[in-house]
Amino acid sequence: MSTLILLRHGRSDWNEKNLFTGWVDVDLTDRGRQEAVRGGQLMTQAGLLPDVVHTSVLRRAITTANIALDEADRHWIPVRRDWRLNERHYGALQGLDKAATREKYGEEQFMLWRRSFDTPPPRIDTDDEYAQTGDPRYAGIEIPRTECLKDVIERLMPYWEGPIREDLAAGRTVLVTAHGNSLRALVKHLDGISDEDIAGLNIPTGMPLVYDLGEDFMPTGPAEYLDPEAAAAEAAKVAGQGG
Amino acid sequence: MSTLILLRHGRSDWNEKNLFTGWVDVDLTDRGRQEAVRGGQLMTQAGLLPDVVHTSVLRRAITTANIALDEADRHWIPVRRDWRLNERHYGALQGLDKAATREKYGEEQFMLWRRSFDTPPPRIDTDDEYAQTGDPRYAGIEIPRTECLKDVIERLMPYWEGPIREDLAAGRTVLVTAHGNSLRALVKHLDGISDEDIAGLNIPTGMPLVYDLGEDFMPTGPAEYLDPEAAAAEAAKVAGQGG
Repeated sequence: MSTLILLRHGRSDWNEKNLFTGWVDVDLTDRGRQEAVRGGQLMTQAGLLPDVVHTSVLRRAITTANIALDEADRHWIPVRRDWRLNERHYGALQGLDKAATREKYGEEQFMLWRRSFDTPPPRIDTDDEYAQTGDPRYAGIEIPRTECLKDVIERLMPYWEGPIREDLAAGRTVLVTAHGNSLRALVKHLDGISDEDIAGLNIPTGMPLVYDLGEDFMPTGPAEYLDPEAAAAEAAKVAGQGG
Repeated sequence: MSTLILLRHGRSDWNEKNLFTGWVDVDLTDRGRQEAVRGGQLMTQAGLLPDVVHTSVLRRAITTANIALDEADRHWIPVRRDWRLNERHYGALQGLDKAATREKYGEEQFMLWRRSFDTPPPRIDTDDEYAQTGDPRYAGIEIPRTECLKDVIERLMPYWEGPIREDLAAGRTVLVTAHGNSLRALVKHLDGISDEDIAGLNIPTGMPLVYDLGEDFMPTGPAEYLDPEAAAAEAAKVAGQGG
């Protein structure tokens, strides 16, 4: 028996500007920082204190973890980071305005790129300003040029099955601070959600989602948001957006 | 050949209040945060970018590292933390006002506690509010009840000889973000400073101190502050305080 806490980072600069973000390393807004504080408060109030934290290598997840853990007085726990927890790579859409993209390509294509399980957006050019070519944090790995959710699952699972499960096996309460799509990939696996149904799943930001796991590292019951009412309200709101 | 960067955390709440701090986990002030930003800027300007960071388990060092690395765009590097990098435990003096302590015990005793190599302050009671008894971050270790600099060296060296040297041996540029006395302990070893002369050494806050190390993990030349003029001015100021 072990405990897994998932925490999606909050509002970022490019949420604010309504741009596709993906692997572009934008910062949290002040509101995003407040969401992280709230995440830490919810963990504290629930007495759910992580023994170790795993983050992506993107600033918005890292800062969320730093702030939430500081608030929960767990700033001193071990930290692990991996690109496999990164947000879905949004390909050539990275840096584009969402509303303009919707207008240009039409609602159907727009939603396909956003929600399709296996249709990735167009590939980004390697000389695109948002292609991350030469970024030292990705030395030794082949940076994706685009990803659909299926691709995210494929690159995420080795990290779930390796470092995260190692910590869970040691009886640690594990916090994973990551992104909308990397967390959807994990929740799809844990809750056995079908390729079709995952399109309808939204994970609210800044709201710890808690799983009790059995010895097979699968849930022993339904996951719970630490603030269920706020989570439901937020999920309904996100579902109504083109974000 | 490898590079070691030492960074002492900046101004904390208890610096502001002129209290002995030691292992008490106080936060940085806004000025302390600004010092951390400046530390990150200095590393960026010098092109000295850490591949891995080691911190104590105290908030003021952890937050300094988070801020400086974020500023230097190195927020994504691996993080290691250990209590062996903590500040010197100040024993029964933790939480006491420095000026009142000097007045009560006299200048000689006061300076002995502050600067003696091997005379620790009185031991803290285990039921003292600042004794950290039961703090989960120290589970499995015997929390010191007081320490002199000699004690700090003894508990620090296994961490230097282990995890830090492992990273150096792998050719990584290593940032150590810690405290006045844990860094003095390290500098004493690296620069071969005598038990007597170490009393006169002050390491300025927020100012990266850079060592080039040879294959024996000892300096190949004198260490350099990334902002030498500011460092000298700051050290002179610190030396004149009873802090």
